[in-house]
Amino acid sequence: MLEPLAHIGRDPRTGGYLRDAWSPADLELREWFAGEAARRGLDLREDRNGNLWAWWGDPSPSRPGVVTGSHLDSVRQGGAYDGPLGVVSAFAALDVLRERGVQPSVPVGVACFTDEEGARFGVPCVGSRLLTGVLAPERALGLTDDEGDTLADVLRKAGRDPDALGRDDETLRGVGVFVELHVEQGRGLVTEGRPVGVARAIWPHGRWRFDFRGRADHAGTTRLADRDDPMMPFARLVLAAREEAERLGVVATVGKVRVSPGNANAIPGLVSAWLDARGPGERAVRELVAALTGGAAVHEESWTPEVRFDAALRDRLARVAGGGEPVPILPTGAGHDAGILAAAGVPSAMLFVRNPTGVSHSPQEHAERADCEAGVVALADVLEDLCR
Amino acid sequence: MLEPLAHIGRDPRTGGYLRDAWSPADLELREWFAGEAARRGLDLREDRNGNLWAWWGDPSPSRPGVVTGSHLDSVRQGGAYDGPLGVVSAFAALDVLRERGVQPSVPVGVACFTDEEGARFGVPCVGSRLLTGVLAPERALGLTDDEGDTLADVLRKAGRDPDALGRDDETLRGVGVFVELHVEQGRGLVTEGRPVGVARAIWPHGRWRFDFRGRADHAGTTRLADRDDPMMPFARLVLAAREEAERLGVVATVGKVRVSPGNANAIPGLVSAWLDARGPGERAVRELVAALTGGAAVHEESWTPEVRFDAALRDRLARVAGGGEPVPILPTGAGHDAGILAAAGVPSAMLFVRNPTGVSHSPQEHAERADCEAGVVALADVLEDLCR
Repeated sequence: MLEPLAHIGRDPRTGGYLRDAWSPADLELREWFAGEAARRGLDLREDRNGNLWAWWGDPSPSRPGVVTGSHLDSVRQGGAYDGPLGVVSAFAALDVLRERGVQPSVPVGVACFTDEEGARFGVPCVGSRLLTGVLAPERALGLTDDEGDTLADVLRKAGRDPDALGRDDETLRGVGVFVELHVEQGRGLVTEGRPVGVARAIWPHGRWRFDFRGRADHAGTTRLADRDDPMMPFARLVLAAREEAERLGVVATVGKVRVSPGNANAIPGLVSAWLDARGPGERAVRELVAALTGGAAVHEESWTPEVRFDAALRDRLARVAGGGEPVPILPTGAGHDAGILAAAGVPSAMLFVRNPTGVSHSPQEHAERADCEAGVVALADVLEDLCR
Repeated sequence: MLEPLAHIGRDPRTGGYLRDAWSPADLELREWFAGEAARRGLDLREDRNGNLWAWWGDPSPSRPGVVTGSHLDSVRQGGAYDGPLGVVSAFAALDVLRERGVQPSVPVGVACFTDEEGARFGVPCVGSRLLTGVLAPERALGLTDDEGDTLADVLRKAGRDPDALGRDDETLRGVGVFVELHVEQGRGLVTEGRPVGVARAIWPHGRWRFDFRGRADHAGTTRLADRDDPMMPFARLVLAAREEAERLGVVATVGKVRVSPGNANAIPGLVSAWLDARGPGERAVRELVAALTGGAAVHEESWTPEVRFDAALRDRLARVAGGGEPVPILPTGAGHDAGILAAAGVPSAMLFVRNPTGVSHSPQEHAERADCEAGVVALADVLEDLCR
């Protein structure tokens, strides 16, 4: 089922995917979702925030559904599995339920959340954050992409109504429980020797922009002693972030840098660097950032506290998905829509599928076919158990 | 005279200039040049490489002209003086000659060289290098800008013939001597307390691209121990380049960086950094680069040996421009079209105009009005002396 998606938004030079939210590639993926829903006779709905829902049955506040799904957008130059595996597995698990002749006592839904990765506008999980009200629509609408277009512009161009954005209790009350299947972004399941696992918690994580200001000047004629070159404190930040992360037992990454003016023959006037930091404890992550100012103006662009998934639901999933022997329960450093829903009070859980290298957000991201199939079966078992 | 140019290509947010070669701003500046030539009854010619020449008189191999001028393009976010001051002063000095009733015995020309800064295609002094044959037309035509357009595409769009590019002896033989006036890109004249100076030599300088390859991966889920993050050796390069430059008495700058994929939540797979290095001796510059590989693949993008300007011409200029007391003779770390012409055997020299802060390649670049006027008078004196 992943096959028909393989060419959409693929960069032929790298094999990586470019599937920004609301890009032509994303719109094509949304069309594919609509087609899969129609082929199964599911009722397709797009909520006010652009999230897609394909329903088998009609959910209501008094009869909320069991929902599974993930997202179809990608980080830039990402892999084929992060997101799409969860959506494809959701449709496939629904097919398994029907083959088994399951008659669900509640509606079953397949969800596709919009702009999970935040590749275009810099804020991740835009669709689920808007839905649950933790992202204010005014803030979302003013986000700009690299072209300077706001989300409001982009939605209008895609024929959507920017004024409709915001917390959507009607949609939310239709979700009784949410289970997201995802390729693992680490090697926990390789170590455990199991194809499928369940999430324990999502580490607290944040993103900070460090602006180092100096004085733009000529690279050939300015004496070293006269320079105020922001590239120097920036380089020290990169090395210090690694050292502090090791000391504190967290992870820290500088993956995005903007140099202005960015001429090879000019000392920069401004270097902006984005620090991503996460770890098993909030205090350690906060301590890392506090240790790293180094003369920069620091802007907190996002902060997500730790999400602990509902323990009873998690243990039930681990039992059901494992058949006889419960599957491993793993922590994760990655944010997910399931985490946003959990934080908003929707009972939520995640299934992970083994990733042989642990590599993710990269064209090398991979999952074996047999493990993907084991994931679908586990997800079908879980849905069958939940919708009885 | 700089006033009518002040708005062309100006970024309203920063006050810096965006005047890439063959951009709409550059074409507007070329129109301005044509207008100034016409207003003075000068004969306008565009050579096969896009350089502009405004002639008072008709040069020939047996009667080559005295030429002055500079360039109109800019580094990105550059200032108002680097380039335009030399072109404006050339026209103004010609006006002074006429006011003085000078009857030149040889033709006098005003030149505007194309793409001196290399902001768009990465290679500086494209117009003068093509003219003198040190840049092969095949290489120039294949250069690409940020949009992926080649110089050949860009020339075609601007109505020029890419096949015409290359060494142009006919044009070159019309230039008996070339004098370029330029805002100083340092504080030598501030120290000397003089408004005008003359160039001794242009330091040898080069540009190298360092490609650090690692493995793109997820910023939240990849353990520090499992990372192969190219941002680390890149940061060490930045700091080592500064240290080595201090040790060797040269200057080194990292002003341009490209991070791929460049997501805040992804460990990069590739960091490319451009090193600009220059200094008073070739051996020291070469030693710096050799000391800095640090695991990167290093590509030499350009190398320009030291240019020593013709000593007799230089001393003559210093005497004439200084009136009674010869003006200071200064070295420079910046490349110029005058250096390209000098290296090709055209007797060439440079006049510098005092820069109060020494800052250049920045919106803060400045020269006082009185110093600019002193520059025009000195240039007129020099032209009058040379064209007698």
